[in-house]
Amino acid sequence: MLVEFRSSYAAVVYAHSTEEVSAVVRLCAETRTPLISFGTGTSLEGHIQAVHGGVCLDLSEMNGILEVNAADMDCRVQAGVTRKSLNSHLRETGLHFPVDPGADASLGGMVACGASGTSTVRYGTMRENTLGLTAVLASGAVVRTGGRARKSSAGYDLTRLLVGSEGTLAIITEAQLKLYPLPAAVSAATCLFPTLEAAAAAVASLLQSGVPLARCELLDASAIRAFNSYATEVPDVPVGPTLFLEFEGVSDEMVGAIASVAKECCDDSGGGSFQWATSESERRRLWAARHSTYYAALALRPGSRGIVTDAVVPISRLAEVMRQTADDVASSGVWGPIFGHAGDGNFHCILLVRHDDPPEYVAKLNAINERLMARTLAAGGSCTGEHGIGVGKKKYLVPQYGENTVEMMRELKRSLDPLNILNPGKVVDI
Amino acid sequence: MLVEFRSSYAAVVYAHSTEEVSAVVRLCAETRTPLISFGTGTSLEGHIQAVHGGVCLDLSEMNGILEVNAADMDCRVQAGVTRKSLNSHLRETGLHFPVDPGADASLGGMVACGASGTSTVRYGTMRENTLGLTAVLASGAVVRTGGRARKSSAGYDLTRLLVGSEGTLAIITEAQLKLYPLPAAVSAATCLFPTLEAAAAAVASLLQSGVPLARCELLDASAIRAFNSYATEVPDVPVGPTLFLEFEGVSDEMVGAIASVAKECCDDSGGGSFQWATSESERRRLWAARHSTYYAALALRPGSRGIVTDAVVPISRLAEVMRQTADDVASSGVWGPIFGHAGDGNFHCILLVRHDDPPEYVAKLNAINERLMARTLAAGGSCTGEHGIGVGKKKYLVPQYGENTVEMMRELKRSLDPLNILNPGKVVDI
Repeated sequence: MLVEFRSSYAAVVYAHSTEEVSAVVRLCAETRTPLISFGTGTSLEGHIQAVHGGVCLDLSEMNGILEVNAADMDCRVQAGVTRKSLNSHLRETGLHFPVDPGADASLGGMVACGASGTSTVRYGTMRENTLGLTAVLASGAVVRTGGRARKSSAGYDLTRLLVGSEGTLAIITEAQLKLYPLPAAVSAATCLFPTLEAAAAAVASLLQSGVPLARCELLDASAIRAFNSYATEVPDVPVGPTLFLEFEGVSDEMVGAIASVAKECCDDSGGGSFQWATSESERRRLWAARHSTYYAALALRPGSRGIVTDAVVPISRLAEVMRQTADDVASSGVWGPIFGHAGDGNFHCILLVRHDDPPEYVAKLNAINERLMARTLAAGGSCTGEHGIGVGKKKYLVPQYGENTVEMMRELKRSLDPLNILNPGKVVDI
Repeated sequence: MLVEFRSSYAAVVYAHSTEEVSAVVRLCAETRTPLISFGTGTSLEGHIQAVHGGVCLDLSEMNGILEVNAADMDCRVQAGVTRKSLNSHLRETGLHFPVDPGADASLGGMVACGASGTSTVRYGTMRENTLGLTAVLASGAVVRTGGRARKSSAGYDLTRLLVGSEGTLAIITEAQLKLYPLPAAVSAATCLFPTLEAAAAAVASLLQSGVPLARCELLDASAIRAFNSYATEVPDVPVGPTLFLEFEGVSDEMVGAIASVAKECCDDSGGGSFQWATSESERRRLWAARHSTYYAALALRPGSRGIVTDAVVPISRLAEVMRQTADDVASSGVWGPIFGHAGDGNFHCILLVRHDDPPEYVAKLNAINERLMARTLAAGGSCTGEHGIGVGKKKYLVPQYGENTVEMMRELKRSLDPLNILNPGKVVDI
């Protein structure tokens, strides 16, 4: 996070097929040229920066949807297809691809980054939703991992080794993905809590009761305040830690049965005014503060951009780490509304920075993030829930895992990319 | 499958801690001695055979349950803890560990084998349920992978590289596992179909309707006949392809809502006499034929043991591959009832063999399996859904994945175990 990159690509190559990617990789291997694959450029930890120079391999024109197997609920796409274009294409099938990191990222990039988002509590991350890959190794060899079967124990799990490898072990050119039926019934709910602790207790209660959550998001009071000052055309919503829930099911009866148990869980944890809705317009209204969190945050300080932290902890530690972070933001005198994928224990703080901020101001934000990372690791969490390592988080890997484990990662990198041409300087250094 | 092993261990070492395992690995590295880890010995593809001699590392006495974090629904166990002993230990917490391969296998073995079973359609395999591992590398170095966070994108996914690696990349000594609440309400159902195709169509319809299935098993007519001749104390059940379903939920209302949509899916696919029950005794009665499948099969031919094939295909090909296999069994004049984890596209044929069968008989069984594997790969499936590669299925890896992909597996093996001391001769040869 917050690393400044001063670098540029020597060239940008647009590839259109796995064979072209293989040819480019072979050329880069011959000339020992770093190769950085590029999808939509929406990653957040410097993944696409040319820290050692080199060639940018732009896969955005590899945007073919190669197959949709509706009967088996899977599809095969080229790496440059974005998640929204896939979902548009699927519209008539009654199926969808649910992983939603916010940005309209390319699916190859989402695989490479191990992306997830608001629907992960129900559908999992890219790890659970990638059935197989076509990828080009550093030698130029093309591999096909996984397959179309829903499960398999045939050999090493190369698919999941490549998911989240951030372009450092292979170039992903195609992905076989799981699809899901659009739910027959959906309902949404919101619930205000007196404290972050009470809201987190409600999340724990929902999970421990086995309530099937489609989404489970938490906004802190400062994020709600940001919404109220941003969305001046609608009435203010009550300020305080607020849970945003969504339920899905095969019928209104099923969704109603779920919502009724969910309400009990929230009530028992001190939640007030549990509101729920089934019509799309009412659901949209209930969730408005969550849907506009990012832009509401930016509006707190005109002209700023958001630097989004990323931390994930066991649920039992979520309230404590969120509160300490909110306190840290407040006492540092900066802006930083907090929202979280609470059902996963994952949360973000949107730190606002302007290009003309003095170095001392930027240093404050960096210090907040450093303390957040220390707190997260001490709580048994991970330095990144969904943004990946890139350049910005390399330094936390050894504190998180220990030297032996990171050395095992380096050994894999050395083994699969001995010339260090695939996105060098990211994830681990060799 | 069906490989005969004539080998024995030079010694059996009982380890009690990760440190002891590390010391044994270092000694084996010094002396280039093969090391075969052993849990309960319930794997099916020759994983624990000493094909190159060597030492058996018995982990069954590493049976400590190190932590149960009820609030976060996770636990940490030593590798030798069996799934049943973990679930007994959890009884008072309202939580359970759901992956159920049938045998009371050790959890370390289940991780190593990438195990799954009847509950996988709901809860996933060991891949989805292993949060982190402690493991000893071939150098003796101890690594800790993953962690307690519910998701993470911090570096290469070493956990899932080791899940399913069958003791060939590292010795797993501890596992951090996801736990789940025991469901508040459960119901079971059975439904008879005129053909395998109709039953498979019902499964596809259930999945495409988003019906949350807790279990979804399919028995062919020969498996039902085997049950009727085995369970003479209960009335015969109607003979024909039969689906065995289970639903879970937070309340009877939720489970009822699910069962009602499930019944529609079965009716629309030509299913007859959809029966369902919520009380435990009635559920047990409905599912009796499924629960006793294996022993009913053995009873068809007294004195025999079952050789269990393992294949997984996309759901749209399940009926066809099951039918061709059933026809092959019938026309070969052998016994081979078929049952499947239909919701995953995974099925098994129980081929019966006696120690005094002539070589021609055994050759017939091998030929059935060879044809099944060819059919499975042609249908875009995997040569093993849950039993793993071991020795018996090595030869199918190149046909399934292609040479480049298997070479990538070999490269990982060479990199992490350059002396080839960890369970050599399994998964891939180097």
